[in-house]
Amino acid sequence: MSDVKLRSVDPATVELLEKAEKDNVSTAFFRADTMKPCPIGVEESCCKICAMGPCRMPRSKKGDEKERRGVCGATIDTVVARNFARKIAAGTASHSDHAREVVETFQKAARGEAQGFAIKDEVKLLEVALDLGVPTEGRSVQEIAVDIGEKALAEFGKQKGELAYIKKAPLKRQEIWRKLGVVPRGIDREVVEIMHRTHMGVDQDYKHLMLQATRCALADGWGGSMISTELQDIMFGTPVPVLGTFNLGVLKEDQVNVIVHGHEPLLPELLVTASRDPEIKKAAEKVGAKGINLAGMCCSANEVLMRHGIPCAGNFLQQELAMVTGAVDLMTVDVQCEMQGLKDVSECYHTKLITTSDRAKIEGAVHMEFHPETGLDTAKKILRMAIENYPNRRHTVYIPHHSQDGVAGFSHETINYLLGGMFRASYRPLNDNIINGRIRGVAGVVGCNNARTPHDAAHLAMVKELIKVVRPWRAVRPAS
Amino acid sequence: MSDVKLRSVDPATVELLEKAEKDNVSTAFFRADTMKPCPIGVEESCCKICAMGPCRMPRSKKGDEKERRGVCGATIDTVVARNFARKIAAGTASHSDHAREVVETFQKAARGEAQGFAIKDEVKLLEVALDLGVPTEGRSVQEIAVDIGEKALAEFGKQKGELAYIKKAPLKRQEIWRKLGVVPRGIDREVVEIMHRTHMGVDQDYKHLMLQATRCALADGWGGSMISTELQDIMFGTPVPVLGTFNLGVLKEDQVNVIVHGHEPLLPELLVTASRDPEIKKAAEKVGAKGINLAGMCCSANEVLMRHGIPCAGNFLQQELAMVTGAVDLMTVDVQCEMQGLKDVSECYHTKLITTSDRAKIEGAVHMEFHPETGLDTAKKILRMAIENYPNRRHTVYIPHHSQDGVAGFSHETINYLLGGMFRASYRPLNDNIINGRIRGVAGVVGCNNARTPHDAAHLAMVKELIKVVRPWRAVRPAS
Repeated sequence: MSDVKLRSVDPATVELLEKAEKDNVSTAFFRADTMKPCPIGVEESCCKICAMGPCRMPRSKKGDEKERRGVCGATIDTVVARNFARKIAAGTASHSDHAREVVETFQKAARGEAQGFAIKDEVKLLEVALDLGVPTEGRSVQEIAVDIGEKALAEFGKQKGELAYIKKAPLKRQEIWRKLGVVPRGIDREVVEIMHRTHMGVDQDYKHLMLQATRCALADGWGGSMISTELQDIMFGTPVPVLGTFNLGVLKEDQVNVIVHGHEPLLPELLVTASRDPEIKKAAEKVGAKGINLAGMCCSANEVLMRHGIPCAGNFLQQELAMVTGAVDLMTVDVQCEMQGLKDVSECYHTKLITTSDRAKIEGAVHMEFHPETGLDTAKKILRMAIENYPNRRHTVYIPHHSQDGVAGFSHETINYLLGGMFRASYRPLNDNIINGRIRGVAGVVGCNNARTPHDAAHLAMVKELIKVVRPWRAVRPAS
Repeated sequence: MSDVKLRSVDPATVELLEKAEKDNVSTAFFRADTMKPCPIGVEESCCKICAMGPCRMPRSKKGDEKERRGVCGATIDTVVARNFARKIAAGTASHSDHAREVVETFQKAARGEAQGFAIKDEVKLLEVALDLGVPTEGRSVQEIAVDIGEKALAEFGKQKGELAYIKKAPLKRQEIWRKLGVVPRGIDREVVEIMHRTHMGVDQDYKHLMLQATRCALADGWGGSMISTELQDIMFGTPVPVLGTFNLGVLKEDQVNVIVHGHEPLLPELLVTASRDPEIKKAAEKVGAKGINLAGMCCSANEVLMRHGIPCAGNFLQQELAMVTGAVDLMTVDVQCEMQGLKDVSECYHTKLITTSDRAKIEGAVHMEFHPETGLDTAKKILRMAIENYPNRRHTVYIPHHSQDGVAGFSHETINYLLGGMFRASYRPLNDNIINGRIRGVAGVVGCNNARTPHDAAHLAMVKELIKVVRPWRAVRPAS
């Protein structure tokens, strides 16, 4: 038990880990104990790229780096650079494939073919049109949106030139990128080129490999990720500050609990709409529930939180624990970070696990594919399934009484407005005060946790360090 | 020594392995002995995809497949399917990135901007125009070629629909692909989608993953690979049967030996042209050589062999051994299958190792980048460097006296012509005779070797099996 307490600083997590142990349910926390990471692979000294391997090249006791060669003669530098570059390729591919799905839905929304979707933020639409070189004068919102959709989609397949958003970076930075030859030509091309260059017997100079890795990473940040943010804002509204509630305590014993988990905000957005439908509410009451409680998990949570104030039930390592409450009637997942372990946990309780993307199935889960044309119908079907499942709760329901309030929704546009008002929107007051030293800095704490360390350990360590009271003048005072 | 003899059935290889041992030079053959493959990785029971791993999931003695789970809960089926799919992604990326380089050079050749390149096969140009839907009537060769270049390049970035060449497959096959949803939309997109779907917590149903792997593989075969074949034929001429010589015995003691190694036939084609330049020949004679002996290695060898009868010095496992002769004055490499070990071997002798592609450098090698605009100049510079290096041979030169004749160049078009003549070009005589049983079958033995088994062991085993005299009626005669 004391061991469980060391796994998380969060009491909700600790309580549910204890319940999971009692219920004999396996979670990532426990599996991390029994699965020791490969000591060679963990330092990337292993090459699995061709059929002459896998070659293992751990550091020798003699410390002779020259001896660390694969069968093909690849050095440890080459092997580590290749492995790292492929991780970047997978990351860019994932973020950008999410963006592609958003663009395809946006195109349908622009043509009025996407059920439940519309162009909500017309101001942002015009800004994005300007960025992408889409003419706006005397044109309808729909015409502009259709063109934006086409331009955005073209960024993925582009073979030459530069990504459109590169020119939003500071000019000096653009110059550095151009000098190094790392400005992405198209999003997909850079991923593919990494996969080629990291193949057996291709690029075998780690610095050269890292340049392509950089180009691919930029294709994510200034390509896929930026495109999805912009088009999601246009479709669903640019976020403004909103009060939210966080942690597993947001689940409700007397309501139908539906968790939206994953990354793409498309179906979650429609689940929000559908959950407010009077007929759906009535159906929930009919089975004895007081209503429908929609909650988010991981990145999807953030999307529906910052636009609709939907509570956030937790982060990556809490996904299985939500089901351990016995109170989750249904969980939808689309792409990324959805543990396959969810299926087993869902079987231990009564939870329906629903996969919704054409890119991702989980063996044994129910697949209800989201398509923009019929998205709202699918959302309603999913909620009805959750309602039908409410009476099937068979375990002791235990929801930890822990949750916390917080404010979300600080979009770029909102910060601009908050600092400068409508007519002088700008970061200038912030910048000035950073320059004059009254504000010590701004930190965005982003990224996920890992079952190999206590829950959120890395984030907590960093935040504690950042907010530490240090008197800066001490550092510059000459030694007496 | 007897051990060395077991490594290859080829006496040239055995002799040079003996020399390498004497010269204290490491080759892939020897490294394979000291580098044992990881027993878990070799059966793909290892997942390195996220930072919670690497998770090792070897088969347990109890044989309980259910227990083989990663920290995230991924099953062994998911892990193996992901690993396999990523191998397909890397293969498609590599073949197709080669094709992209060919297309970009073809575009420059069409516009007359590629030094030393031209549109050689106008008949094939018209055929490809027909396949890609490029109008030909009343248009110049150049106009048609420019359009073909654009259409071909677009296949890489395409986001929707189907690859153009899919319609060249038998109709029944096309139907099966469409039914399964595995017709590729664009070449790059399918690679990127695999990288996304194989990421942590995305596609976790091995059958579903295999469908995308199939789609990506088809994007290679009916996309990148087919495009490069077609455009190379147009630029360099469609191959016709030609006598070739094979094996390390093609190197010549009294000539400047230059080996072209790699995959892209672009620079090799120009090296052939340059090697026939009287001034280059004269320069070679000036340093005491009787001429320039250009020889191929691996896939590049095949390209220059089937179009120019350039001898082939060997295959993948012989690349280092060519240098061990002490007679190779220069080796060019572009992309794929070039062992990093070449650099070390080149240092043991006098060989200049030249990297020529912007996609691939090797630490310590000389980088002379090929660009279509200045390709012939680069080719000449490379040959001059080889000539200058000829007097630097410092080891005992030993070239095994083993080579063999063979006929190459059986392109699709040639077989059609050989079987049906000019006006009835067709595979029909072949098909008829396979149907009536007089020809037992046709086998293409393609693919590379592996230092983990004796040289070419897999190919030899298969060929021996295929040409075995078996009386087929024995198999169907009822047991007496």
